[in-house]
Amino acid sequence: MTQNIYDDPDFFAEYSRLDRSVEGLDGAPEWPALRALLPAMRGLDVLDLGCGFGWFCRWARERGAARVLGLDVSERMLARAAAMTADPMITYARADLETADLPAARFDLAWSALALHYIDDLGGLLAKLHRALVPGAHLVFSAEHPIYTAPTRPGWVFDAEGRRTWPVDAYSVEGPRSTDWLAKGVVKRHRTIGTCVNLLIGCGFEIRHLEEWGPTEKQIAERPELAEERDRPMFYLVAARRRG
Amino acid sequence: MTQNIYDDPDFFAEYSRLDRSVEGLDGAPEWPALRALLPAMRGLDVLDLGCGFGWFCRWARERGAARVLGLDVSERMLARAAAMTADPMITYARADLETADLPAARFDLAWSALALHYIDDLGGLLAKLHRALVPGAHLVFSAEHPIYTAPTRPGWVFDAEGRRTWPVDAYSVEGPRSTDWLAKGVVKRHRTIGTCVNLLIGCGFEIRHLEEWGPTEKQIAERPELAEERDRPMFYLVAARRRG
Repeated sequence: MTQNIYDDPDFFAEYSRLDRSVEGLDGAPEWPALRALLPAMRGLDVLDLGCGFGWFCRWARERGAARVLGLDVSERMLARAAAMTADPMITYARADLETADLPAARFDLAWSALALHYIDDLGGLLAKLHRALVPGAHLVFSAEHPIYTAPTRPGWVFDAEGRRTWPVDAYSVEGPRSTDWLAKGVVKRHRTIGTCVNLLIGCGFEIRHLEEWGPTEKQIAERPELAEERDRPMFYLVAARRRG
Repeated sequence: MTQNIYDDPDFFAEYSRLDRSVEGLDGAPEWPALRALLPAMRGLDVLDLGCGFGWFCRWARERGAARVLGLDVSERMLARAAAMTADPMITYARADLETADLPAARFDLAWSALALHYIDDLGGLLAKLHRALVPGAHLVFSAEHPIYTAPTRPGWVFDAEGRRTWPVDAYSVEGPRSTDWLAKGVVKRHRTIGTCVNLLIGCGFEIRHLEEWGPTEKQIAERPELAEERDRPMFYLVAARRRG
């Protein structure tokens, strides 16, 4: 059972103020890198795992996706997503990704943005996802980087000379991490990139691309606060394909 | 051109005292995990990139490898490797891996232990390696983990409560890192796991396994000093196959 922190009123209010909530995909600095991993949308049957406000679902349809199913555990987010479209080929449904049933052999693309680090049984979800995809289907996702999730006390440390470092410990100790991000006691699941990659391979996916996302020089010039993302990655991005 | 620190007399003397130099493969705590990634040796034509004292070359022959070519940039290491065997099916040759010529379409297995983080042009080496392997051949290697190589000032930091953390910065800034490990000014090449994985895929390899190595409970019970390897990984291990 995944924690449904997004329906916590305080968390939801804070989350709604983030750039990526207000501006959508373009408000997320990792979006250009993720977009580069996506196939052409035209005609695709798309699944969005943790669709939030539905930005990606609408984007996919605008670019010709045949239909899109967006799943999320948060009632509040789905309500807002539904209010932002009248497209009959976009369906939103409330679901805990860990327990949800998925239709078999239907989707050409599965997408997930910053949701999988909330999932405890990732192997179970990937096995289910494999069954829901057609042979050769694409899987593209972002998740919080294990360097970001590992520390027992996350947060920048500044030494006597003002040098900023990220205090990694417990990296190989996989499991829940309770952090105070937008609200107290948000539970994420720390796992190494290696574990994620091996789960994908074991479930019948082929790894096509792995990126430990960092900002470009241009992005830092435009938004200097992004420079710290070069010191320790916050996200990683994966493109994989279901084996035929 | 790769730095040949292993022929520095002081470095060599220090390196020769490490467990992995004295005890061979069993002196390296990551060896059981690496060994699990290897195919059966019988009949294989094996290439060892950075063979050092030749422990793996001899191990492969003892388990039935048809022949083994061990390459290393260090004259001192090769001299000791040669002195430890009279096996005519093991060949040692001095080579800078970045500039060495490799025979075409010959090897069934390429192995490399803790050498690739010295290589500047990893993409060039992998492309060359791909040509030297037969279709379906195995590539198994270990390298220093980017969490280990990233910091501008590597070394454990202890906070007021005695908590040990590893100070990550400059993670996305790939390139040379000069460190004082066994000798002053040892130059390693920091690159992310993502970059390595993408180079492998781009060169025609399929990723089979990725492991950010950490010690088992049993290993920590036997050698308590290994516990810190659980806080930040020192190595990562990769198994890949050349596409057919």
